[in-house]
Amino acid sequence: MLVKNRLLIPGPSQVPPEVNAAMARPIIGHRSGDFAKFHEELAKKLKQIFQTENEVVILTGSGTAAMEASVSSVVNPGDEVLCIVTGKFGERFAELAKVYGANVTVVEAKWGETYDLDTVTKLIQEKKFKLVCATHNETSTGVTNNIPALGDLCRKYDALLLVDAVSSMGGMDIKTDEWNVDLMVSGSQKAFMLPPGLSFVSISPKALEVINNNDSTNYYLSLKKAKKSQDKWSTPYTPNVSLFYALDEACNMILKEGLDTVFMRHKLLAEACQEAVKALGLNLLAKEEISSYTVTAFTGNVDTEAVRSLLKKKFGFAVAGGQDSLKGKIIRIGHMGYMDFADLFGVIAALELCLKEVGYPVELGKGVGAAMDVFYRGGRD
Amino acid sequence: MLVKNRLLIPGPSQVPPEVNAAMARPIIGHRSGDFAKFHEELAKKLKQIFQTENEVVILTGSGTAAMEASVSSVVNPGDEVLCIVTGKFGERFAELAKVYGANVTVVEAKWGETYDLDTVTKLIQEKKFKLVCATHNETSTGVTNNIPALGDLCRKYDALLLVDAVSSMGGMDIKTDEWNVDLMVSGSQKAFMLPPGLSFVSISPKALEVINNNDSTNYYLSLKKAKKSQDKWSTPYTPNVSLFYALDEACNMILKEGLDTVFMRHKLLAEACQEAVKALGLNLLAKEEISSYTVTAFTGNVDTEAVRSLLKKKFGFAVAGGQDSLKGKIIRIGHMGYMDFADLFGVIAALELCLKEVGYPVELGKGVGAAMDVFYRGGRD
Repeated sequence: MLVKNRLLIPGPSQVPPEVNAAMARPIIGHRSGDFAKFHEELAKKLKQIFQTENEVVILTGSGTAAMEASVSSVVNPGDEVLCIVTGKFGERFAELAKVYGANVTVVEAKWGETYDLDTVTKLIQEKKFKLVCATHNETSTGVTNNIPALGDLCRKYDALLLVDAVSSMGGMDIKTDEWNVDLMVSGSQKAFMLPPGLSFVSISPKALEVINNNDSTNYYLSLKKAKKSQDKWSTPYTPNVSLFYALDEACNMILKEGLDTVFMRHKLLAEACQEAVKALGLNLLAKEEISSYTVTAFTGNVDTEAVRSLLKKKFGFAVAGGQDSLKGKIIRIGHMGYMDFADLFGVIAALELCLKEVGYPVELGKGVGAAMDVFYRGGRD
Repeated sequence: MLVKNRLLIPGPSQVPPEVNAAMARPIIGHRSGDFAKFHEELAKKLKQIFQTENEVVILTGSGTAAMEASVSSVVNPGDEVLCIVTGKFGERFAELAKVYGANVTVVEAKWGETYDLDTVTKLIQEKKFKLVCATHNETSTGVTNNIPALGDLCRKYDALLLVDAVSSMGGMDIKTDEWNVDLMVSGSQKAFMLPPGLSFVSISPKALEVINNNDSTNYYLSLKKAKKSQDKWSTPYTPNVSLFYALDEACNMILKEGLDTVFMRHKLLAEACQEAVKALGLNLLAKEEISSYTVTAFTGNVDTEAVRSLLKKKFGFAVAGGQDSLKGKIIRIGHMGYMDFADLFGVIAALELCLKEVGYPVELGKGVGAAMDVFYRGGRD
């Protein structure tokens, strides 16, 4: 039976037809004046979404490329780096810092939980770190970490703060400057509603000084080069021009909807998804107060992999399972970017039917009803 | 707040991305050998969906163009024509027959009901009709009329049978030959999943003989010319080449899903929609036994226009209101073509919320639950 492909993994996410259409525009030369002018206008829009006065460079590569660009442009062998790990993408920072020869201190939280602020504070007070790496929205667990608290600490103890907001920027209220984040990383394929292939880094003056004086082992991923080129509205290497067009269209859509409305939509979708999960007797992986607005992870007394497989086969919904230690144990639904309430009602209804099919007791309509109620009341509180 | 455009009027309907992509192919000359070869293969697929051995000509024009082509190619002034009218599109046949000078006899049913077979039988027994016109699926009311019974009568009393299957062909099980339909009309923008702009007419040998010997007042809409051109896999005038590509892709999708599966999907969607409407205490316009599988019309103790307006504004769902005498009184949801269960769950959930917003009593989730139950049980019976 026909089912539509409905991509609700926590990224790549759904792409609006307007964005697809933008990608069909003819390629122009990336060294042309036309491109430079376009790039300059685009960067202004990106800065609005990043809520920053800092420059945001655009890299042709995935989110990991931007993470590596940031780490490799700042870290020298022997530098002290603190990595706050609350899931798979936190681990990635630690791996990267090690690759570039840093002395890495890791603070780990159990997957599904956030970091302990006292532990982190103590560590930062005890040792002088050049760089602190943290994940804003941990895609692997659906946990949102407190970044402002880290920003305060880094300001006080003079460390650079590098934050992965790959799966939250464009969907959640992230105040890059107010939070004192020196390097804020994001990617195209999540709340930005684009296909994969671009990533972004905002660079504070303080970070730029370190970068420009650093003896970095990188070339393609050099933030020094990226920033230097961007000062002339160029890129050091050939950019993905089609995705630049797409980004421009997506930024237009986000800014037209209005940042506050976009953030509210993501918050409502998240709360509705969480309430539906709870109404079905399933268990949220993350406590509600640290739950992400872009991805909901849950588990329950049910074969989650069988449910995921049915969701795809019977209803076309691609949702994610767990990674690493959570493999086979959880389901993750992405609700970011080009997603509205009808999408959410659809996936919850489908989830109920798939749960029922594998023998889990479901009163049909109960989960959807709970999600609808959140929409009706305009939020959970 | 962002909502996706969700086109659930009873046509034009949603277009699959594959079909949109097909329309982006470069135009080729319509008098070329390449086009002729393509046309020949395409016609074979169309015949499978029409369940006919007769040739199906493709016209560049809407469903009304195909209706007019059929009437004008068969009718001469003074001819006796019987029009079975059960809604707006039945009326259109009567209007067309009058324009071409026929003596028109009209059998009318109340909107929302089907025709009375005894009345029709008596009329056909009493008077020799050259042509009988009927609507298979009356889009304005959501009623499906019994065509096989008319086919039997027309065979027995030697009248041509012209049927409008614009909003059902490709979604419902229509046996053109077995039902003895001489001229079966359909259009691109309904269950065929294409944008508007093409229409189709299957022509029986008996109809072709009449057409070829007729002194018709038409030119662009001449079925004689269309059939003559099609014998060489050409068209009399410039065809919409992009929509021919789209049609080919859509036929591939329909045939790949399998006709039986396509028909079952439409039946299930219709039953689920009907059960949801009933569970919400609303009233189906048509009795279930004559209810269409591609469009559901309903009414209730509520301001239907306010609900329609909210559905569009709050959830992006475009659904139709009533036409002519039913204007402002009903809501019509199209569930044809590129539509799956997640779409249906979404629109029902949205309907519930909009009903609640205008003060209609709703227990959130009840309608969706009823629709889910139909899916779960694999049908209503």
